[in-house]
Amino acid sequence: MTDSKIVLALDGMGGDRAPEVVVNGADIARERYPGTSFLLFGDPARLKPLVDRRKGLASTLEIVPAEDAVLAEDKPSFALRRRRKSSMWLAVDAAAQGRADTVVSAGNTGALLAISMVAMRMLEGAHRPALASFLPTARGETVMLDLGANVECDADNLAEFAVMGSVFAQVLLGLDRPRVGLLNVGSEELKGHEELRQASAWLRREGSPIDFHGFVEGNDIGAGAIDVVVTDGFTGNVALKAIEGTAKLYTQFLREVFRTSSFAKVGYVFASGSFRKLFKRVDPRRYNGGVFLGLDGVCVKSHGGTDALGFAYAIGVAVDLVRYEYKNKLVEGLAKLRQVTSTAETTESPALRASGGAE
Amino acid sequence: MTDSKIVLALDGMGGDRAPEVVVNGADIARERYPGTSFLLFGDPARLKPLVDRRKGLASTLEIVPAEDAVLAEDKPSFALRRRRKSSMWLAVDAAAQGRADTVVSAGNTGALLAISMVAMRMLEGAHRPALASFLPTARGETVMLDLGANVECDADNLAEFAVMGSVFAQVLLGLDRPRVGLLNVGSEELKGHEELRQASAWLRREGSPIDFHGFVEGNDIGAGAIDVVVTDGFTGNVALKAIEGTAKLYTQFLREVFRTSSFAKVGYVFASGSFRKLFKRVDPRRYNGGVFLGLDGVCVKSHGGTDALGFAYAIGVAVDLVRYEYKNKLVEGLAKLRQVTSTAETTESPALRASGGAE
Repeated sequence: MTDSKIVLALDGMGGDRAPEVVVNGADIARERYPGTSFLLFGDPARLKPLVDRRKGLASTLEIVPAEDAVLAEDKPSFALRRRRKSSMWLAVDAAAQGRADTVVSAGNTGALLAISMVAMRMLEGAHRPALASFLPTARGETVMLDLGANVECDADNLAEFAVMGSVFAQVLLGLDRPRVGLLNVGSEELKGHEELRQASAWLRREGSPIDFHGFVEGNDIGAGAIDVVVTDGFTGNVALKAIEGTAKLYTQFLREVFRTSSFAKVGYVFASGSFRKLFKRVDPRRYNGGVFLGLDGVCVKSHGGTDALGFAYAIGVAVDLVRYEYKNKLVEGLAKLRQVTSTAETTESPALRASGGAE
Repeated sequence: MTDSKIVLALDGMGGDRAPEVVVNGADIARERYPGTSFLLFGDPARLKPLVDRRKGLASTLEIVPAEDAVLAEDKPSFALRRRRKSSMWLAVDAAAQGRADTVVSAGNTGALLAISMVAMRMLEGAHRPALASFLPTARGETVMLDLGANVECDADNLAEFAVMGSVFAQVLLGLDRPRVGLLNVGSEELKGHEELRQASAWLRREGSPIDFHGFVEGNDIGAGAIDVVVTDGFTGNVALKAIEGTAKLYTQFLREVFRTSSFAKVGYVFASGSFRKLFKRVDPRRYNGGVFLGLDGVCVKSHGGTDALGFAYAIGVAVDLVRYEYKNKLVEGLAKLRQVTSTAETTESPALRASGGAE
């Protein structure tokens, strides 16, 4: 697959500003990633005029009619059972059946996860999918997972996520040995949940498929102390949104600075070039494209509220995952992990189990 | 106690820059909060010269000799058993025995929690202490708890924390009916852990002692959507540190903006007044002073790395908690909560329990 043409299935009706953003995003991606072509699922009456407006797009894109669409308010179980004819279901199915190499959707996250778990199934050696994405840090970019696919995780899940995240960073960031850390409340041995200590013990063993850095804390994310931050879906989702909320707050504070006085406004004129560079660096569109790792297929979730440029970035994530054979690398990594976790050696005694921060 | 003199016990040897920061912080607080006096615990040979240097401080401060000190690397259990003669233990004990109204320490957080739990015990109706503090938001300030005292929390703990946080916001922010939210991965009913759904069901009941706003997400913290954010100590600690890390990252990005070009440097000159206002608004010293809520006593934890001004803010938190009778209000609130949680009515059926985001 490495050198051949890559076919992407796109959910034409998913996202706050679909189908416009999807069509225009595909048009940007088409120029960025030569050799890609698209299967665009949705309502032809709405899609065709948009496609025709972008010169040359029609030559690499085929519209596949879908009579239904998953709504933002649909429960995952409802979408799974009752939206079989939706653009999302059909697009995922095309990637699952091999008519496309990958699928990209900006639609309902829970529905997309449920549908792709059923249509694609899990990859050999993986038990639960984890949602992974990038974050800007002081040293570049960091991968974080799980961002919300699993509210509760055991040690096995966390160890698998560590391997998945490591392979993801290899493929997307081009790193040979990404440094992986487990998110915890402190780097001291006795802190945190038992699952974390067990996963940590496994990942430290000889033969571990990853470069395991140990426990990291919330502030290590922004500092870029490691390349991959692993946590359960509850903590990951809260941390991601807390980070996004803080970034938004600081941007707002900054705008107020330049609005408050005429002096500051003059200052902004001088500094505006540098500010544009800053905003580019932290532009959320550049970090668009969450991936459900661990599925036997490549399914990329775009932010629902992104624009065409952001959607093109999500397509880029899908292209890289297909091109650099993420699935094969992941199967290999998970097989190595299984050798390490299956040995009889146990972790610390249960007596060390801490019930609270005071222990 | 409301109108009389307030006596504060200070751990003179706790914190990265003790004892200087403690003594100088007391000196700032003495002018800010007339009617306060201090018992300063620690090594007289080191404390006395520092106190004598601050004119007038000696008249409201008594040095109480302590021959030992808790170290930053001490495990809580070690400090609890083997540092009985430390400045921290003696200062907490003074507040527990009534020789002081409250205690402030910038020392080892885990040790301070362990020692105050043993010396002060829990307040009537409270089962676990929670670490609470303030965060800057788009709309002012928000209280968040638990920030790390309890790695695992059940529904009872979370409901109690909600009441504790509400009383804390009443006393410290001067709000009549603070809006309280439970941190979760989504506002939809079925998401999140069972303990969260049970706590939410209790807090929604008629007769609930708080103004319960329901579930909130990570981004609601920075937006200031509510006054009090309640979560378990694991999630709270990770979220707090992720927020602090992001704030630091943006400050660093901003510095780089003004360093990159001469134009930008000129811009900074014009905007510097407004920037000073921004930095004041998000100055971490203003948010210094975490409190272990739920203890039968008032124990305030200052950031270990703060300066004298930050330490004075932590003293201010302690003064307000004593002055506005936080303990009485908390006992009242917890009694009301008990009436609400003790009725037989149950929460949603266990069949609705979600095992993951896909449900």
